[in-house]
Amino acid sequence: MVSILEVILSARLRFALATACLLAGVASFALVLRTPRAAMAATAWTPTYTAAGDLVPPKDYRDWIYLTTGMDMSYTPKAAGMEDHSTFDNLFVNPEAYRSFVATGTWPDKTVLVLEARDAASRGSINKSGHFQSGGVMDLEFHVKDEKRFPGKWAFFSYDAASGNASLLPQRASCYSCHAQHAAVDTTFVQFYPTLLPIALKKGTLSEGYLKDEAAK
Amino acid sequence: MVSILEVILSARLRFALATACLLAGVASFALVLRTPRAAMAATAWTPTYTAAGDLVPPKDYRDWIYLTTGMDMSYTPKAAGMEDHSTFDNLFVNPEAYRSFVATGTWPDKTVLVLEARDAASRGSINKSGHFQSGGVMDLEFHVKDEKRFPGKWAFFSYDAASGNASLLPQRASCYSCHAQHAAVDTTFVQFYPTLLPIALKKGTLSEGYLKDEAAK
Repeated sequence: MVSILEVILSARLRFALATACLLAGVASFALVLRTPRAAMAATAWTPTYTAAGDLVPPKDYRDWIYLTTGMDMSYTPKAAGMEDHSTFDNLFVNPEAYRSFVATGTWPDKTVLVLEARDAASRGSINKSGHFQSGGVMDLEFHVKDEKRFPGKWAFFSYDAASGNASLLPQRASCYSCHAQHAAVDTTFVQFYPTLLPIALKKGTLSEGYLKDEAAK
Repeated sequence: MVSILEVILSARLRFALATACLLAGVASFALVLRTPRAAMAATAWTPTYTAAGDLVPPKDYRDWIYLTTGMDMSYTPKAAGMEDHSTFDNLFVNPEAYRSFVATGTWPDKTVLVLEARDAASRGSINKSGHFQSGGVMDLEFHVKDEKRFPGKWAFFSYDAASGNASLLPQRASCYSCHAQHAAVDTTFVQFYPTLLPIALKKGTLSEGYLKDEAAK
């Protein structure tokens, strides 16, 4: 059972081995993300796809609702090859989907969760221990609910620096089965989102798989 | 030079030793934070104070703009007493102040930065290594710019569970001098906010103290 995080780890290994061209692409994307925005997003987000089926990444996701941050999370005992450095994963969701979750305890159609990876630096400025987020975006993953488009209603996409879009991960990728089996609400890992878990508990929307995992502890 | 983070560490030690009464107060506050919000904040935030000079905490700060997360950060070599567990600090700012920073590279009057501490758990659900955010809010600190009200324009406040408000830290507290000497922009540690540091660099708003620290490396 390989999770989305493990997919990202593997993406990071690819990143580490990337060519100068790929690195240049990532740097360009980081610049796009830093482009000043005069106003917050005022209209609801709707997924847009290229003719090839790639997702056009939402550029204003840092203005969206923040859900949580993890550091070096892994669903296997050891994250091989990651011992030498640490990474933060920040999670955002589009505001209209967030409002719907607060009201209902689950996600509406056209939800997108954005997982943004950044380097976890330790030494820098006057910091002496612990970790802070440093530099540009290292990786981006998207989990999109588009009920009519995808079997299982949801799909995962991984940012591709070369195209500037996000590539669809095939339904056979293990992230789909792991999320389906273990995620707390509607294939999303709400058990790791501290402000949403109490809402799901109250609304009774926790998945059978999650409740079974918890009962087995 | 004790930083705001160290003030928080000391607050956490107090928290650990707190009475059941205090813990009940913290629990109530966590519940307030979880109250469903039907809509995003539509109007600009203005600081409100009690007659005693306490800050009335903004309840919708999780709908604001997310800046960054640190884990176990400390400006001294060792965070005494913190070896047995880890903590995430999430940082938010009011949207109108963020928009102004993006345009100018510095903070306008009526800025508030909110530092929210949450437990960094490691084992939970299917997670096997690394850390995720778990449970309610452990601590809240506020850094408020209110030019006419405070000497030095800014003040720090610490959430007080007993009153439900945030207490003003006296100007002699070391967080003021440390921020004044080392923070990258206008007494704020923008060097640890990955999306804002490039803006400050571009706008030429980095502080003399920060530039001196960097040059001395």
